[in-house]
Order: sequence, then structure tokens, then C-alpha cells
Amino acid sequence: MLKLYYAPGTCALASHISLEEAGATYEAVRLNFAESEQRKPAYLAVNPKGRVPALATDRGILTETPAILAYIAQVFPAAHLAPIDDPFAFAEAQAFNSYLCSTVHVAHAHRLRGSRWADDEAAIEAMKKKVPQSVGDCFDLIERQMLKGPWVLGQDYSICDAYLFTIDRWLEGDGVDIARYPKVHEHFRRMETRPAVQRALSQQQAA
Amino acid sequence: MLKLYYAPGTCALASHISLEEAGATYEAVRLNFAESEQRKPAYLAVNPKGRVPALATDRGILTETPAILAYIAQVFPAAHLAPIDDPFAFAEAQAFNSYLCSTVHVAHAHRLRGSRWADDEAAIEAMKKKVPQSVGDCFDLIERQMLKGPWVLGQDYSICDAYLFTIDRWLEGDGVDIARYPKVHEHFRRMETRPAVQRALSQQQAA
Repeated sequence: MLKLYYAPGTCALASHISLEEAGATYEAVRLNFAESEQRKPAYLAVNPKGRVPALATDRGILTETPAILAYIAQVFPAAHLAPIDDPFAFAEAQAFNSYLCSTVHVAHAHRLRGSRWADDEAAIEAMKKKVPQSVGDCFDLIERQMLKGPWVLGQDYSICDAYLFTIDRWLEGDGVDIARYPKVHEHFRRMETRPAVQRALSQQQAA
Repeated sequence: MLKLYYAPGTCALASHISLEEAGATYEAVRLNFAESEQRKPAYLAVNPKGRVPALATDRGILTETPAILAYIAQVFPAAHLAPIDDPFAFAEAQAFNSYLCSTVHVAHAHRLRGSRWADDEAAIEAMKKKVPQSVGDCFDLIERQMLKGPWVLGQDYSICDAYLFTIDRWLEGDGVDIARYPKVHEHFRRMETRPAVQRALSQQQAA
């Protein structure tokens, strides 16, 4: 059985929602970040990166949100979570997810994870200060150029929607008002009404 | 015809090598980063992100290295550049590429692109200072856990090898001695002997 390792508030939510959308049979395993469980030997044996998400499968462990999302779309084709039979359309989906992981998530991470990139306290503070601008710039681009509407890829819901929704949830903490982005905001509200989203969120909020 | 927008020294090399490995018919279009050509209106009309690579196809433009690499593997299946018929193995390839783009490339970018994440000069200097450590830590993990050998995914050459080689080439500038990583180093040297790699490099070095 698939096993998703996650912590609430992290990008693992995108995989969690997608497993729910897929109708997958899986177990969700919560890590306690407050106790740095992700850096303890038991979890490092699962994912040596010490990060979430990780998805345990009968073939082995997968990491990295874009890879896990594409995997879920491919192994549950009936759920139609990505245009997996059209290489160009699939690449557009992947490009969207890659932008979220390598640019948007990274901009956000400078608020709480600055110590990854500098040791100096003042530098870490300077990074925090720029987060509203750098994250805001990313969402300008998403609003203007990337979110086709009503869903990210246009008419069809996909793994990209779960990932965008996951990162949207960080905007308030990042000092960015989602209302500045009408299409993103409307997309966010539509995501909240999806049963799969509600099930994933309530699992993560329980216990 | 495919058209690859690139600049020498950037991650676009991974796509360039992969087009050569695929035996694709394509045109390589060089941008002059010294003159900030990537931020001028003509190129922003191609890629509003103002980055390379971008791949123009008859269906439209693709961006983001992991998406372009998977696309090349899928549209040139005879070149066997990724295990595209095995969702788990494909996800492992994608996870490798995703780590390169969202963690390793990002660590590297703090040397020359710190202004993306802070405005303060001292903070930008503090970021530069940590690059040898943060990039070195990434390569520790690649050496110990990720590079299966002889190729990234094991016995078969793939898009992951072109991408790793591309980032290897930044190590010296990042203050990291590749000789600390024997498997990576040996992989790098083996990559240099591939005709497709030599053709891509010589195109990029010409003119």
C-alpha cells in the first residue's frame, strides 16, 4: 500500500490531495516537525533529504513533489489528473509544477529557512524582508501568464491545481494578500469546495 | 522545427545535450546575457520569466529544465533517454531532476543571483559565502545516495546525466572541488567523452 509521509503546512499537501483525487488506497504518516522528526534516523532511512513529502511504494520510495504528482497521475489514469498521453500538454503541466517547486517554493522558503543559504543573522533577516516582494512577483506571473482558468491548465482539473492551492495557503504568512490576484483567489476558493481537498485537509488537521 | 533558446554557462546545456542525444533537428538560439537580452521585450514574448532554457515547438513554448528534458525523452522514444514506460522508474528520474532544479541549482544561484532573495549588499555577500558549503552538501548526498552508477539511474544513460553534468560544471566556480566526489567525478569525465556532449559544448563555445 502507498504510504505518504507528510507534515501539516508543508508542500506534502499537494500529494495528499492528489492521492484523494485519485481514489488511492494509502496511509498518511504524519511527522512531527516541532520535534525535528524529519531529521531523525528513522525518517532519514526513508528519505535521506530529511524533507517531506516522501511516498513509499511497493517498488521503493519516491521524493520531490513534481515527481510524486506525475507518478500519481500516471498510476491512476482513470482519475485524469494530468494529460499523460500528450507529451506537449504533459510538459506544460510539468513546467508549471517545476516553477512552483524551484522558484515559488524557494522564494517562500527564505522566510523561515534562510539558514539554508546564509549563516549570518542579519542576512537571514534581510531575506525575510524580501519575501513579500519575491513571492508577490511570482504570483503576478502566475496570475498574468500561467493560470489559464478555470483550472491551471484550462478546462481540466489537474495535479497542478493541488500544488498551486498548497502554495496559495502560504501567502498570508508570506505577507502577500491573495486578493491582489483575482484569478488565483477565485481558483483558491473553488479548490476549497472540492471533496478531495476537504478530506486531505481534515486528515491533516485531525489528531 | 524545435528551437532552443540558451546562453552559455547556464542550465540550458542539459536540454542542448539531450537534443543532441535524441538526434533531434533543432535550431539553437543564443541569448547575450551580458547585454541582458533575456529581459528584453523580444525574449520576454517567448518566455515571460526572462530565463533560459525555452524550447519553441510547433505547439508552443516550453520552459523549465525538468519539463523540457522529460518532453525530449517522450517525443524521441527511440533515443531511450528516460524510462518513460515505467511510472516508478520515470518518477525516480524526475525526482533526481527536481532535486537538481529546486535544491542544487538554487544553492548555486546564491553565489551570483542573491539579489533575487535580498536587497541588502551585506546579505548578498553572506549568501555567497555559504555557497561552497550548501552546494557541497548537495553533492555529498548525490555521491552517497543518488548517483547509482555508472549512470545516474544505473546501467542506462538518461536525461538525468545531462542535467548532472551541466551542474557539475559550476562546481569549480562555486568553490567545490569535484575530486571530493569520486563517483560524480568519474561520471563527469565519462560524460565529456560522449559525442553528443561534445557537439553541444562546441556549438555553445562557437561564435
